[in-house]
Amino acid sequence: MKQTRRLISSIQKEREMANIQGSSSPMIGGDGSHSYAKNSTFQKAVLDAAQGWMNEAINDKLDFTVLDFDSSNPTFRIADLGCSTGPNTFFAVKNIIEAVEKKYQTHFQKPPLIEFQVFFNDFNGNDFNILFKTLPSYQNYFAAGIPGSFYTRLFPKSTIHFAHSSYSLHWLSKIPPEIVDSNSPAWNKGSIQCTGYSKEVANAYLGQYKKDVNMFLNARAEEIVGGGLIVILIGGRPDGIFMSQTSTGVVFDLLGASLAEMANLGEISDEKMNSFNLPVYYATPKEIKEIIEENGHFSIEKMEQVTHPMVMAMKMKNMSILEIVVSSLRAIFEKIFTEHFGNEEIVNKLFQRFAIKLQEIYPGFHKIINHCIEHFIFLERKI
Amino acid sequence: MKQTRRLISSIQKEREMANIQGSSSPMIGGDGSHSYAKNSTFQKAVLDAAQGWMNEAINDKLDFTVLDFDSSNPTFRIADLGCSTGPNTFFAVKNIIEAVEKKYQTHFQKPPLIEFQVFFNDFNGNDFNILFKTLPSYQNYFAAGIPGSFYTRLFPKSTIHFAHSSYSLHWLSKIPPEIVDSNSPAWNKGSIQCTGYSKEVANAYLGQYKKDVNMFLNARAEEIVGGGLIVILIGGRPDGIFMSQTSTGVVFDLLGASLAEMANLGEISDEKMNSFNLPVYYATPKEIKEIIEENGHFSIEKMEQVTHPMVMAMKMKNMSILEIVVSSLRAIFEKIFTEHFGNEEIVNKLFQRFAIKLQEIYPGFHKIINHCIEHFIFLERKI
Repeated sequence: MKQTRRLISSIQKEREMANIQGSSSPMIGGDGSHSYAKNSTFQKAVLDAAQGWMNEAINDKLDFTVLDFDSSNPTFRIADLGCSTGPNTFFAVKNIIEAVEKKYQTHFQKPPLIEFQVFFNDFNGNDFNILFKTLPSYQNYFAAGIPGSFYTRLFPKSTIHFAHSSYSLHWLSKIPPEIVDSNSPAWNKGSIQCTGYSKEVANAYLGQYKKDVNMFLNARAEEIVGGGLIVILIGGRPDGIFMSQTSTGVVFDLLGASLAEMANLGEISDEKMNSFNLPVYYATPKEIKEIIEENGHFSIEKMEQVTHPMVMAMKMKNMSILEIVVSSLRAIFEKIFTEHFGNEEIVNKLFQRFAIKLQEIYPGFHKIINHCIEHFIFLERKI
Repeated sequence: MKQTRRLISSIQKEREMANIQGSSSPMIGGDGSHSYAKNSTFQKAVLDAAQGWMNEAINDKLDFTVLDFDSSNPTFRIADLGCSTGPNTFFAVKNIIEAVEKKYQTHFQKPPLIEFQVFFNDFNGNDFNILFKTLPSYQNYFAAGIPGSFYTRLFPKSTIHFAHSSYSLHWLSKIPPEIVDSNSPAWNKGSIQCTGYSKEVANAYLGQYKKDVNMFLNARAEEIVGGGLIVILIGGRPDGIFMSQTSTGVVFDLLGASLAEMANLGEISDEKMNSFNLPVYYATPKEIKEIIEENGHFSIEKMEQVTHPMVMAMKMKNMSILEIVVSSLRAIFEKIFTEHFGNEEIVNKLFQRFAIKLQEIYPGFHKIINHCIEHFIFLERKI
């Protein structure tokens, strides 16, 4: 049940990011979510593992001496970057505070009361009204909403002790322009994602991803105090595996194939089809490691990988899971498709085609051994 | 034109407060505002005066040495308490930052870049989405939204350098219960405001006001650093003058009389009429001074009074001004009336009656010499 909620939250989060990529309007209401909850349960405690690692990391690495923490007037500042509208951000924050509080109590002898200030960040278009209205009635922290892209500066210098970002950083700030430029060798004609088969396309996607992650790390390097910590959870793929060789990549390719069929039938123009790409990049552990090391501001304290919960869902031989895949993919990407094609009817047809295609390959689908993964990345700001 | 904008903002602000007192739902859209702007201009630069005083106060009283300001890593934190949805809060903040920046440049020799963090606070029900979407495209500060009542703690200890609160603090956190208790000597039967004629009612209103202002000051005393400053603008009345002897009080009494007529005609019940009171208190300079001095956490650096811009509007012998008074009163209090009487039709009838009554007394209205005032209060957190 807990995993189901998290899968749904992951989907909601992805949908939110999709909405934001597409426009600044807030996300569509969470209709349909409950039906997911009713139809499935998942066994593996993916995010419980992440939570365990986070607690461990805070216990091992949070050093109040290094943080130059003012114990006479102790305010500990936490940022959740890409918080969406809750409630997952509230669970994450609660967990972080408990772990920090525990460490604080063991570090100092009879310390004064520590106060927490929590900054919930997301794009200006995020529904902060919902976030604020659903704040837990009991909060042991002072809450703040921070509007703006986390690819830019959001906080004054050296004011954040702990940052957290979940399900957000694999969304690109934009589609690299060469991907949709018919005169470029990186033109991604006939595909809607970074399949991995074209080196030029892969380089363009990776190039944008590098730029984005660097912007993120450079901004955080200014804001996070020396010795401060950051935990990132993002989607990715295993080393040496192309996106199209993963189950999520296969699903994206089916979406692309559905679009291509519609173009062949004249339901959409070739131009519209070829100019559409998903603004997400699933990096490998090696790529991520290289970007962080080249950036140089943070030391990697821990990197772990777990199977993406949506993939786990798909592995279950259960038709209701198939429905979930279709619904959740639609929930995540509908807005982007609708904005690009300018027509809801087209999006309906697209997902009808997609559902049929998915059903066709579904009997063998759970055998696909390459799965997208979740990266758990734990960094410390160098002093 | 500038004054008109400010009157409108003052009205919008009051309406926002009224909505919040009534419920947690966000304010009704700003329809009709533009017609105010078209119909009137005001001469006196009430709020320009306040701005001048604020600049002067920052220049004279802001002392970076006393603030224990970390000039190696300078972050200056500003809170706007009861910010509503803008744009007035943005003008106020811009003005404060310019004045602080100027003082900072003269205080330090070749100082490092100062960074500003601005906390926009209002109730959870405030429309923060609008606030964030209308943030000035160029901001030289890091913006944060802080949901919650300013009668409670909002920030960690000793983290705010400058607080500002405009058109908010004359709204009570609640109607004192004895006011609507038919068994109490403070029962305010037949009136909807603190007229001043009943000592018991006046004491009950003032008692609630004292409690509220004390809660406000106690919370701020924790949050504002020693030597930190706070500027408050609120509605009030002159010393020795009852509310019903002021022009605004007369207007409120006309509203009450309109309600009484409706009760006589059976359009509303006596019980409903007698249980309605406006949750505002207009204090005198003497009362405010006493509350702040008894509280003891802040020294009064400056207190000034100016005529309320709405009163100035009413003094102009111009029928369009009368319309403004009706429209703006309705804008401010409509939600409270509707929630109490549970019927929009009643509120329509109420304001029709009120408009007629106001028209009857209007020829002599501008001669009323006792006007409500705006208090400009400038405080310093004692060290």
